[in-house]
Amino acid sequence: MSRFGEDLEHPHRLHGGYQTPVSRLWQGPSVKTLNPHNLMWPIFITDDSNGMEEIKSLTGQYRVGVNKIVEYLRPHVENGLQSIMLFGVPGNNVKDATGSSAGQNEGLVVPAIKAIVKAYPDLFISCDVCLCAYTDHGHCGIFQFDGSIDNPASIHRLAEISLAYAKAGAHMVAPSDMMDGRILAIKDALAANGLDGKCMVLSYAAKFASAFYGPFRDAAKSAPGKGDRSGYQLPPGGRGLALRALDRDAEQGADMLMVKPGMPYLDVCRDAKERHPELPLAVYQVSGEFMMIHHAANAGGLALRPTVEETLVSFQRAGVDLIITYFTPQLLQWWQEDKK
Amino acid sequence: MSRFGEDLEHPHRLHGGYQTPVSRLWQGPSVKTLNPHNLMWPIFITDDSNGMEEIKSLTGQYRVGVNKIVEYLRPHVENGLQSIMLFGVPGNNVKDATGSSAGQNEGLVVPAIKAIVKAYPDLFISCDVCLCAYTDHGHCGIFQFDGSIDNPASIHRLAEISLAYAKAGAHMVAPSDMMDGRILAIKDALAANGLDGKCMVLSYAAKFASAFYGPFRDAAKSAPGKGDRSGYQLPPGGRGLALRALDRDAEQGADMLMVKPGMPYLDVCRDAKERHPELPLAVYQVSGEFMMIHHAANAGGLALRPTVEETLVSFQRAGVDLIITYFTPQLLQWWQEDKK
Amino acid sequence: MSRFGEDLEHPHRLHGGYQTPVSRLWQGPSVKTLNPHNLMWPIFITDDSNGMEEIKSLTGQYRVGVNKIVEYLRPHVENGLQSIMLFGVPGNNVKDATGSSAGQNEGLVVPAIKAIVKAYPDLFISCDVCLCAYTDHGHCGIFQFDGSIDNPASIHRLAEISLAYAKAGAHMVAPSDMMDGRILAIKDALAANGLDGKCMVLSYAAKFASAFYGPFRDAAKSAPGKGDRSGYQLPPGGRGLALRALDRDAEQGADMLMVKPGMPYLDVCRDAKERHPELPLAVYQVSGEFMMIHHAANAGGLALRPTVEETLVSFQRAGVDLIITYFTPQLLQWWQEDKK
Amino acid sequence: MSRFGEDLEHPHRLHGGYQTPVSRLWQGPSVKTLNPHNLMWPIFITDDSNGMEEIKSLTGQYRVGVNKIVEYLRPHVENGLQSIMLFGVPGNNVKDATGSSAGQNEGLVVPAIKAIVKAYPDLFISCDVCLCAYTDHGHCGIFQFDGSIDNPASIHRLAEISLAYAKAGAHMVAPSDMMDGRILAIKDALAANGLDGKCMVLSYAAKFASAFYGPFRDAAKSAPGKGDRSGYQLPPGGRGLALRALDRDAEQGADMLMVKPGMPYLDVCRDAKERHPELPLAVYQVSGEFMMIHHAANAGGLALRPTVEETLVSFQRAGVDLIITYFTPQLLQWWQEDKK
Amino acid sequence: MSRFGEDLEHPHRLHGGYQTPVSRLWQGPSVKTLNPHNLMWPIFITDDSNGMEEIKSLTGQYRVGVNKIVEYLRPHVENGLQSIMLFGVPGNNVKDATGSSAGQNEGLVVPAIKAIVKAYPDLFISCDVCLCAYTDHGHCGIFQFDGSIDNPASIHRLAEISLAYAKAGAHMVAPSDMMDGRILAIKDALAANGLDGKCMVLSYAAKFASAFYGPFRDAAKSAPGKGDRSGYQLPPGGRGLALRALDRDAEQGADMLMVKPGMPYLDVCRDAKERHPELPLAVYQVSGEFMMIHHAANAGGLALRPTVEETLVSFQRAGVDLIITYFTPQLLQWWQEDKK
Amino acid sequence: MSRFGEDLEHPHRLHGGYQTPVSRLWQGPSVKTLNPHNLMWPIFITDDSNGMEEIKSLTGQYRVGVNKIVEYLRPHVENGLQSIMLFGVPGNNVKDATGSSAGQNEGLVVPAIKAIVKAYPDLFISCDVCLCAYTDHGHCGIFQFDGSIDNPASIHRLAEISLAYAKAGAHMVAPSDMMDGRILAIKDALAANGLDGKCMVLSYAAKFASAFYGPFRDAAKSAPGKGDRSGYQLPPGGRGLALRALDRDAEQGADMLMVKPGMPYLDVCRDAKERHPELPLAVYQVSGEFMMIHHAANAGGLALRPTVEETLVSFQRAGVDLIITYFTPQLLQWWQEDKK
Ligand SMILES: [Zn+2]
Ligand SMILES: [Zn+2]
Ligand SMILES: [Zn+2]
Ligand SMILES: [Zn+2]
Ligand SMILES: [Zn+2]
Ligand SMILES: [Zn+2]
Repeated sequence: MSRFGEDLEHPHRLHGGYQTPVSRLWQGPSVKTLNPHNLMWPIFITDDSNGMEEIKSLTGQYRVGVNKIVEYLRPHVENGLQSIMLFGVPGNNVKDATGSSAGQNEGLVVPAIKAIVKAYPDLFISCDVCLCAYTDHGHCGIFQFDGSIDNPASIHRLAEISLAYAKAGAHMVAPSDMMDGRILAIKDALAANGLDGKCMVLSYAAKFASAFYGPFRDAAKSAPGKGDRSGYQLPPGGRGLALRALDRDAEQGADMLMVKPGMPYLDVCRDAKERHPELPLAVYQVSGEFMMIHHAANAGGLALRPTVEETLVSFQRAGVDLIITYFTPQLLQWWQEDKK
Repeated sequence: MSRFGEDLEHPHRLHGGYQTPVSRLWQGPSVKTLNPHNLMWPIFITDDSNGMEEIKSLTGQYRVGVNKIVEYLRPHVENGLQSIMLFGVPGNNVKDATGSSAGQNEGLVVPAIKAIVKAYPDLFISCDVCLCAYTDHGHCGIFQFDGSIDNPASIHRLAEISLAYAKAGAHMVAPSDMMDGRILAIKDALAANGLDGKCMVLSYAAKFASAFYGPFRDAAKSAPGKGDRSGYQLPPGGRGLALRALDRDAEQGADMLMVKPGMPYLDVCRDAKERHPELPLAVYQVSGEFMMIHHAANAGGLALRPTVEETLVSFQRAGVDLIITYFTPQLLQWWQEDKK
Repeated sequence: MSRFGEDLEHPHRLHGGYQTPVSRLWQGPSVKTLNPHNLMWPIFITDDSNGMEEIKSLTGQYRVGVNKIVEYLRPHVENGLQSIMLFGVPGNNVKDATGSSAGQNEGLVVPAIKAIVKAYPDLFISCDVCLCAYTDHGHCGIFQFDGSIDNPASIHRLAEISLAYAKAGAHMVAPSDMMDGRILAIKDALAANGLDGKCMVLSYAAKFASAFYGPFRDAAKSAPGKGDRSGYQLPPGGRGLALRALDRDAEQGADMLMVKPGMPYLDVCRDAKERHPELPLAVYQVSGEFMMIHHAANAGGLALRPTVEETLVSFQRAGVDLIITYFTPQLLQWWQEDKK
Repeated sequence: MSRFGEDLEHPHRLHGGYQTPVSRLWQGPSVKTLNPHNLMWPIFITDDSNGMEEIKSLTGQYRVGVNKIVEYLRPHVENGLQSIMLFGVPGNNVKDATGSSAGQNEGLVVPAIKAIVKAYPDLFISCDVCLCAYTDHGHCGIFQFDGSIDNPASIHRLAEISLAYAKAGAHMVAPSDMMDGRILAIKDALAANGLDGKCMVLSYAAKFASAFYGPFRDAAKSAPGKGDRSGYQLPPGGRGLALRALDRDAEQGADMLMVKPGMPYLDVCRDAKERHPELPLAVYQVSGEFMMIHHAANAGGLALRPTVEETLVSFQRAGVDLIITYFTPQLLQWWQEDKK
Repeated sequence: MSRFGEDLEHPHRLHGGYQTPVSRLWQGPSVKTLNPHNLMWPIFITDDSNGMEEIKSLTGQYRVGVNKIVEYLRPHVENGLQSIMLFGVPGNNVKDATGSSAGQNEGLVVPAIKAIVKAYPDLFISCDVCLCAYTDHGHCGIFQFDGSIDNPASIHRLAEISLAYAKAGAHMVAPSDMMDGRILAIKDALAANGLDGKCMVLSYAAKFASAFYGPFRDAAKSAPGKGDRSGYQLPPGGRGLALRALDRDAEQGADMLMVKPGMPYLDVCRDAKERHPELPLAVYQVSGEFMMIHHAANAGGLALRPTVEETLVSFQRAGVDLIITYFTPQLLQWWQEDKK
Repeated sequence: MSRFGEDLEHPHRLHGGYQTPVSRLWQGPSVKTLNPHNLMWPIFITDDSNGMEEIKSLTGQYRVGVNKIVEYLRPHVENGLQSIMLFGVPGNNVKDATGSSAGQNEGLVVPAIKAIVKAYPDLFISCDVCLCAYTDHGHCGIFQFDGSIDNPASIHRLAEISLAYAKAGAHMVAPSDMMDGRILAIKDALAANGLDGKCMVLSYAAKFASAFYGPFRDAAKSAPGKGDRSGYQLPPGGRGLALRALDRDAEQGADMLMVKPGMPYLDVCRDAKERHPELPLAVYQVSGEFMMIHHAANAGGLALRPTVEETLVSFQRAGVDLIITYFTPQLLQWWQEDKK
């Protein structure tokens, strides 16, 4: 057994490279490479202007009314919060076939943008753009008579909403609908109004029809009435479709690309970064990912902070620049405590 | 707004490709491409020969004694079970500094292999090979006087254990220790005994120091007494180290490569398949992944079967050929029911 | 000769990786990775509405009238048939210089689509689109006065036919003519009618002028009266032309690409998948391939089932997602019997 | 519909490139690029020294005794035959467990080599090297007591046979056994005798366990008595194993690589040429391929000559340099007739 | 001029992506991605044990004696210093032809390592390894009689020194000599003493014969007496040689690679990271780079802090993980002040 | 010790390749590959027609009036000067909101071009095109009412200026403004006047918001009054944005691409050449780079000539074809002296 030890080739010995905490940091991303600007926090705006309603299905998250939003954000801004993503949660009374209440001045998101811009001019505001929370059928597009998606009408509506948000001061609009061609339509609308240099477009380019969205649909009250979204969201195994969607949205002018959900699609993040190194890459750690870590931590099966941080480091390892996550305020809090 | 619709380039319209259930199947892997041979079930062998002890931290999994193992496997073999991975869970009384009880004829795994081979000659038996469950300090290697790993002694011991399992009839040994050079040592030992053409070696090549192992350590009673495994398991952000480990183990003769954990390292699976298309690729969906899905499903946050199947499809999309998962018997049961 | 055995490098020993039936399955595609959704069955529709005429040159295949088509398909649908491709075989009386009877409402294929959609709403219907069976000269395009192909007129006609099939309910049209630019023309026509999100386009992109089409021309009664197709089908050695055709059709919006014939062009399948991983890939196992296996099996030279399955596994190994083959009903039957 | 024609991008118009017979030749390989030196003819040597026995399962092929071999080859040499591959077909009386009669001076192949070298010094002689025709069990290697392959003993035997053929004057030996490490063993043996610069080694590197070998086993009387060759020949879907085998044999010194069978593995030919452009590539158009074309041609389904030539052009398109085919004398004859 | 504005393609408008401070951070590295663990500070150890001598040619840097080193480091460790690199500056009295005083127990660096390890066990200590400061001729290797480098003797000496530093507790040795094969020699020596898993090797792999080393030679008193280093350091235009050196040192087992100098070789950093993504990459911002920024800032031509930070961000943009820079204490100080 | 020396693999020995001055020249660019045509000299034209004002912040550079420019250039033209780049430095009295004096016939640059063309018809004249020196706010574009850039108006103005310079006889215009779409606007304007075949466009494509521009702003009197240029110049870490800018400008018709500043962005030069090998690549060694070398040389820290030449060789090694540098006359002088 003389072969053990001396015959092993040097590059085959790996241990030496990560024996100390410092040298481990040189091997790639780690908690030390996570910064507040890498995190974006999703915020739900309710139609009850004074509302502050806990979302049971999303631990620690609230549906907040426009009159309460500034106060709600304050402790987190003080902890270093740098960017948020707004979701409107309208009441059933304003829902209709075309989601016409989305983007209205008297609506939910537009006043919220204005209030936040005024209170926190340095806070980066992005807005989810979709129809599903505003339509009575709960789908992300407008239908034709035969029950199929009316793609031109849908992307026209999405462009109108995006324009309204940009005019109100949003720094970024993020269409999550997966209609064909919405990036082009939105960029056209912004450009026609001289706003395309002021409001970025983040494309939910590789958004999959996933089982991990469960808790969110409750939070945003956006589950479709009937049918599912498998006709416009991508099938989970659809790597080729994801590549085509990423390519298309880059070609149509997206300023940033997104993969969603996050952890179950880390390989698609890697694909996206390899194919589009010229654009920043976002990932959405969705409600199901968030909650299953919470449930497991509560049950004692997993340690919360190391698990959360490992998932974030994994996103960076896979090439992600911006992580949209419900864990944002918790992480800012932990990091604040570390400094003390 | 005349641009909507007619101006969209054809390759930019994606919806048409996945409007029907059949065409969705053409876009990539799906539940239809998952087969029983893609699944391997981890089995824990306890030192209580007649034992059948439920593992609370791992829903539905048991520690089984050698006298009960054949009966324990029967319903699953009848449901189509094709491969298993054995883990020994020895009692504290046999643990020592060098894990000398591992691979003993009168031990746990060797008699289990013999019993299973006899009862189910077509069942593929792989055996985890490590020291951590057999050492009194709970680490995966043997220590030198100064408290550092004695790498030559460790891989010598791992090769002895592997040889014992191969002689007993195992079709594959799978070293999970992350000592440098163990693949070469094991292949040398097998070759010197004419067994390298009969017993494959599956390398846990890219095994990360992860927070997702929590429940397993209880199942295998293998948590280290003090210290952690960050000196031999890879740091979570260590993509470069993972590439080096995969390259090394392929060069030293591994017959299959593994990434572990699974979902938080899907991008590393993609890296592994791109770099080593000539070898089959395995992934270990670890205890933390298994349990957080269970907890979330129990809490009503996620639907169990679609979530489980989505994770498996994601593995295939990322290039994985073999999935080691505690969900194996559940999946075989679901698929059996589908046929009725 | 001391070198034998111990000096062989481990990665150079391959046997160990495929000693058991299970481990062989991990090495790549096999009969276990073939699913009904990977198969598409070509069907010939005759102008005799009540016809059920065996095609002597294509063992076990029939020309079927529109009144008989539903019954003809029933046993195969029950065996798991998931997709078909329709070919019209008009009588000589309706043939003319421009193939004007193709795509007519009172024609062959349109009523057949309607009947099948109604009877089997889950069966995926694709339709071959070409002029050769409908023109009196038997060529795939329309001619100019000087005897050369009138490419604009030809692709206009092909687009009209495609539109007719899509309106009748076809899920996919598959132009096999090899005229330049037909994919763009067809997508334009579908888009102008709001059907491009509902009806896929499968391009016979790499279709070669092959000797293996012999039996088909009898089946479809589509042999050209004079001349051959070497001016529009690709020369067999034309790898560069095939790559250009695949690239073009992807750029013009094809939802799936095809290589035809199959086995003699497996290397082109590999080329196609390397170059267009973002699109599903089909192959047509043509009449000559089908019949030579039948003839050899009948003569006792080859075993039918293993030979057929090996050819299908080879398609998957070369990157193919969908196999169009006359063996479809036979395979479904064999697989049905395996379950018993 | 103004878009047809004028809007088509120039690179998308392909017809122009292959409108004339001459320009078609520029697009890639064709019958014009096939030369006699691209063809190698397999020849069977029987133990009946004066024998000339037609092989029913292989149309037009004979088992020929050593006394008749020179005359048998004469017309073909006159037609331009440039290379042959010899297979010995010994009688059952000399078969034993280790195939000891292979490579004997008084055997079949050694005297045949000597006779041919003397008669046709310019004819390139390669010799298949295997044990299956010489062992009483019909397998390609030697067995250990436990019924598994004794790899060191097997490759030792193969090296002895190769050396015998090289000493007799063979220009190339071609081991078809698929034992691990035989290329290294053979090169060692040749080098130790100063013959490695005189006798090439052609490795059957990517040889698959195929259904297309049926007729050959009758021709060479080499079917295994029991068991099959799936433990050493590659599984048909095993692309990764094929890449590893090609890599290994190139590393061990093979002068040429082979893929076998041919047409069903054209994608593997492409893989082989991409990965090893530094070596010439051979393909074996096996007995099943040969016979199914014959059967189909006899039945009138395919035209013999265009079909045969298309398969050969396909090999060249896929990167093949040398084609081993039973059609060799027929092709030489056709080409001879073309000249008249 | 109607084309302005509306005709510009969306992906061609870049401004929108970096209008806010937050979105600029998403576009790549910035001061926010620089962490203390990315910095390593070079320290000079003088033979005057109680010395504390300012180096005039290197603003703010000192030659420090072993008795003062612990105190010298204290304020910087308190500011977050994580790693240092030690250079010995021996007196002329101990210099000889073979640099025999380097690595002696009673020498400079060995006692300094021991003192620092004891005082700051978490501080990562790397040691420059070279002969030039210890030889009387001032070259980095040992000479043969004919005046050429004695490469074997030189790398033997370098391995001895490295071993001495590793035994004293250094976490990394960094040979800067550019002799062929020193990485292999050093790894052999470390491995033979069981230290290769404890002490990393950082190769100055791409070290160029540069004009930017001027100030250092004064600091380390290491200028060669006669001749220059162009026979072993790389010529500035030698990209090919640099790639070969990087490849070689990776193959011989380097744990990290270095490019030196830094800014004038940023393209070589990019080359190094593309070619060796599996290893961390270091850069040395050399004395000439350091001083010319200082001189320009003093003259009022450049603003110090933005210029320094821009150079560090540039290193990260080019793929660098670890920056060895004399600016380290200044940066830690600035960052500390930012927190207040 | 047997391993040192003799065990080193041959490709791992590098010294042999650069032992002589001649063989060093074979390894890549060097001072011998630098030619006068690789250098372009920036020239500042002042509004004092007879002016000859030394620029204190840029050693040895002058602001020269149009009446003096011919004489100023004469000694350098005689030394081999081949190309220059003109910058206008207007007086404050002509500055306004839109930079309307730029490109006027009675202005600075147009008469200078005419004078130089007449005096030195073989001297290649390029002209920087920007607004910052001509606007009263000192920004590179025109503003809208809300204080944001009016991109269409800005690129319209830039195109007018470019056209004026081209009409005056400039061989190249070089827009340095970083407005989106200016290359397209300029090429349109040139083409509309038949000048696009006569006047090249060199795009400052990858121009970063750098601290190294300090001295220039004094030279050109172009510092912005308030605000900075971070909204249109690229952030230093913005590799992705640089790739997009290079791609865009290549697509819009740039004849040459530029990276600016030089040394701190050498990796971007490498990126640019890899991505656009089809275009010549320029680099601007900016004022801060120029001055810090001067300051360090004056202080005795660096040797001037070797340092300057090393920076130029580094540009060539990184793929640069043309270097715009204030060192041009000094280099021409040195080279002239070398010839003596
Ligand atoms: Zn939606
Ligand atoms: Zn372990
Ligand atoms: Zn046709
Ligand atoms: Zn054989
Ligand atoms: Zn030195
Ligand atoms: Zn400017």
